[in-house]
Amino acid sequence: MAILSLSMYQASIPAFVQMLNNLSAILDKAEAYAGNRKIDPEVLLNYRLAPDMLPFVRQIQIAADLAKGAAARLADVEVPKHDDTEKTFADLKARIAKTATFVEAIQPSDIDGSEGREITLTLGEHTMSFKGQPYLVHFVLPNFYFHCTTAYDIIRHNGVEVGKRDFMGAS
Amino acid sequence: MAILSLSMYQASIPAFVQMLNNLSAILDKAEAYAGNRKIDPEVLLNYRLAPDMLPFVRQIQIAADLAKGAAARLADVEVPKHDDTEKTFADLKARIAKTATFVEAIQPSDIDGSEGREITLTLGEHTMSFKGQPYLVHFVLPNFYFHCTTAYDIIRHNGVEVGKRDFMGAS
Repeated sequence: MAILSLSMYQASIPAFVQMLNNLSAILDKAEAYAGNRKIDPEVLLNYRLAPDMLPFVRQIQIAADLAKGAAARLADVEVPKHDDTEKTFADLKARIAKTATFVEAIQPSDIDGSEGREITLTLGEHTMSFKGQPYLVHFVLPNFYFHCTTAYDIIRHNGVEVGKRDFMGAS
Repeated sequence: MAILSLSMYQASIPAFVQMLNNLSAILDKAEAYAGNRKIDPEVLLNYRLAPDMLPFVRQIQIAADLAKGAAARLADVEVPKHDDTEKTFADLKARIAKTATFVEAIQPSDIDGSEGREITLTLGEHTMSFKGQPYLVHFVLPNFYFHCTTAYDIIRHNGVEVGKRDFMGAS
């Protein structure tokens, strides 16, 4: 069985989809844990590892937006706007599902060849410019995995029974 | 300025080197913080976010080994053995430097075209087999960033003054 050359698609979309699915399963475990222990879900959703770090809910929202933004920008389509209104685990699961649906719809032909595409990000007053390839390899992937991992670390720190296998997904 | 097609080299080695350098700079900040606050460095090095999670020192060792192992396996050279003997921040910085030196020596011609290479990992009694491309995209990168992020989260949780910019590196 031949494997194709690594492409912008293969280095991005399937990895996003796998990790979004893993996060969704982790959210199920966190929600069940909160239910069993009579923990107000908001306590977990708003938990931070340090007072000036972002809470769990933001870690998930940002991870989802990194996947959505990268898929859209590399495919040169408009980035869909998802408002940050989630208040429950079910809301966050819906946010992830909506993100995964968008990301999965991007086809290899939409994204392959985007190595040199000009990408401009506006973060507050700050503008960042990249070519597609360094944007994916040096900005999106470390950032995406940073927020996925920090979300995991927050609930792991709070006692939710998840392990590395939940983070990596069954394979 | 043309950017080459994404390759196995570009998706791995420069990302590893950048993050290893970022970890080294984060270690400097953690060491300085411990010194200023008269914290025994071993307290930070052995800190865990949960009793059954690995401590900081192991997060760094594993991150380094993931980069080293991926570089070696994709290039089809022997994986150098680095013993897990680090007891100080300086030891960890040396471990990272040694790892970066090995990883940086891998050339594009050593690693490009490794998409279909058979990779077998032995983890305890468990054996995992991959082709090169899914090994990099779905095993190494999520795992590598997981351990880099968890190391960061541990010292961030302990008050070390680092921010996202330290994790991502100056760019």
